[in-house]
Formats: sequence, structure tokens, C-alpha cells
Amino acid sequence: MSDPIEFYFDFTSPYGYLMSEKIDELAAKFGRKVKWRPILLGVVFKATGAQPLAQVPLKGEYSKRDFARSARFLGVPYAMPAIFPIATQNTARAYYWLHDRDCARAWVFAHAAYRGYFVEGRDINDIAVILDLAQKVGAGDTAELQAALGSPELKDRLRTEVDAALAKGVCGSPYVIIDNEPFLGADRLPQIEKWLESGGF
Amino acid sequence: MSDPIEFYFDFTSPYGYLMSEKIDELAAKFGRKVKWRPILLGVVFKATGAQPLAQVPLKGEYSKRDFARSARFLGVPYAMPAIFPIATQNTARAYYWLHDRDCARAWVFAHAAYRGYFVEGRDINDIAVILDLAQKVGAGDTAELQAALGSPELKDRLRTEVDAALAKGVCGSPYVIIDNEPFLGADRLPQIEKWLESGGF
Repeated sequence: MSDPIEFYFDFTSPYGYLMSEKIDELAAKFGRKVKWRPILLGVVFKATGAQPLAQVPLKGEYSKRDFARSARFLGVPYAMPAIFPIATQNTARAYYWLHDRDCARAWVFAHAAYRGYFVEGRDINDIAVILDLAQKVGAGDTAELQAALGSPELKDRLRTEVDAALAKGVCGSPYVIIDNEPFLGADRLPQIEKWLESGGF
Repeated sequence: MSDPIEFYFDFTSPYGYLMSEKIDELAAKFGRKVKWRPILLGVVFKATGAQPLAQVPLKGEYSKRDFARSARFLGVPYAMPAIFPIATQNTARAYYWLHDRDCARAWVFAHAAYRGYFVEGRDINDIAVILDLAQKVGAGDTAELQAALGSPELKDRLRTEVDAALAKGVCGSPYVIIDNEPFLGADRLPQIEKWLESGGF
């Protein structure tokens, strides 16, 4: 059995969202599972010196156009959120809290959060929105999650994940690692497919 | 007759080189011509605040791997030049000088320069190398080109082209414009193909 594919993403990353709608099906085609790992681009950008794409002169305007066109190209529903980018530390923490209890439910939550932001335009870092999403994906009583979101343990959990991602070379979102081979960007999907098909090229 | 596709690139851009090996054939499939426009990424980066990719922490290492893998993916010969990136203002000026005399020859020169750098590892900004390339593509007596390379007129010519590109929103290399629709990066080739096929999507 091959190792799972690692999929690093920030919940505010449009290209991460596009990858989230494609990677599992693609992996399954080749008998592979996917390990979802939300990270914080803000921390990554401190390491790389990059700015959020939408704020870069010239490139920002281009990017907004490219987000929507790339979604159409891939057949993924997409609506540019009115507030973009947003902080996502609460969303990512909720993911890991759910993950430690039921990883399948965390995966459903991640999908719901991504679609909540990039289709419905909800502020998915807002605690009330997170609890609503968690309840809808069957997390039951969310009081425990609400308490956990403010805890130092869960903050540390996310920090550890982001540090581990940086140590692996993660330099953007989405960042996919297949058997030590890294792929940055939703536009690397064709290369990912070829890699899975042929075991490298 | 449709307008030509505009193809903006810097001679030191690996993804620009990959595009240069693909765009004409793709355009021809849909009865379109391509207007090649070398620019200077250094000037673009001043406008966008970006750094040369290879010098960005984490992303630099990833990029070098991705350049070579993307070339293999596209079936384009590629060898990472020992000195990278390089200045390319002389190469770009030579292109425009040739272009104003014989645009077909300038196109052959551009291909030869790109391959000279990304296959043979030659310093294509070096005047002696430029004159050698120009002679090989049939530019005849290159003394006139050599004199022109130091002239304020040719410097102005390139500056005007780069300014015009910036005014069009060019924010990287390669940057392709098809009927006002911009595409950044060699990884947009599948979208470019779909766009040409369907007249937009």
C-alpha cells in the first residue's frame, strides 16, 4: 500500500479550493488516499517573503480573473468572496480538533468550509459559522469544540502542523506531495495525474 | 482574420522558454499568428514588488525542480543554466533590432537565444554570443547590430515596449493575451487551448 498523498492548503486559498474539489477523485483513480493538512499562508509568506496574491500590483487584478476562469475550466462552482483574503486560523483549528476525533468528519467539514467561503461567501473563520458547519456535518454538541477553539492546546496543534509543513518545504497553497515529489498549485493537476499514472516522469 | 496572439516573455524565464516551444504550433492549429514581445522581468518586478523566483526562500528550491519537471512534462529539452537568472536587456534589444528589419528572422533568433540559454547554457546577454546567434540566423554583417546595441534609440525602443507591456497589465513571464484575455504562465497552456477552441469559456 502506497503512502497517502499529502495535500496542504489554506482555507482562504482559491487554488487550494479548486484542488480540494479534484484531488480525492484523482487519487482514488490510482488507489491512493489523501491526507488533508490545512496550514496558514500568513506564516508561509513570512518565510518566503511573498504577499497575498490579490494585493500584488497588476498580479492582483489578473489573479481574480484567473481564479474564476480556472474554476470554470475545471468545472468547479466559484464565486469570488466579497471579503478576500480572510484569516483562517479558527477554521484550521476546528479541522484538526474534528480530525483527532473522526478524520472522515473533518474531511466533510473541510469541504463544507471551502464551499461555504468560495460558493456561499460565508466568513468561515467566524466562530458561529464554524460551529454551524460542524453541527451540519454531524459533530453533535459543539460546546466542546467552541471551548477548544480558545485553548492553548489547539493553538499549539495548528502551530505544530504549520511548522512541520514549512520543514517539508511547503511554500504555497495548494501544495501536494506524492512520494516526496512536491507540486505547487491547482494548475499542476495534469502533472499530478501523469505522476500517479507512471510513478514519475 | 483574428488579431495575433500576444506573447510577452523575458529571455531568462524558464516558463517563458517552455511557452516559446509550444505557443506557435498551438496558435496555428486555430489559424492564429503569434506576436513575440520580449520584456524585462526586472522592470515588471519593480512594479509588482516580486522577487526572482529562484531567490525566494523555499519556493526557489521548489521552482528549480518544477522548471525541469514541467519541461519533461511538455517534452521540451531543458538544462538548468549554471548562472540563473541573467540580465537580458541586450538579447531583447537585439530581438527588436532584428524585428524591425525582418520579423521572421527575429523569431528564429528568439528561438535560438532561448535554446542557447536553456539547452546549451550560453550567456545570451553577452554581446559576442548575440552576434554569433544573429549571424547563425542569417542576419549577415553584424557590425551594424553591434553598433545599434549601444545606441540610445534601441534602448528607448526596448523601454517603450516594456512600458507598453506594463500598461497592458503584463505581470510576469510568459504572459499571453488572446483577444484581451490574459494568461500568465506556461501552465495555462490547457486553458489557452480551450479558449482558442471555444472562443472563451
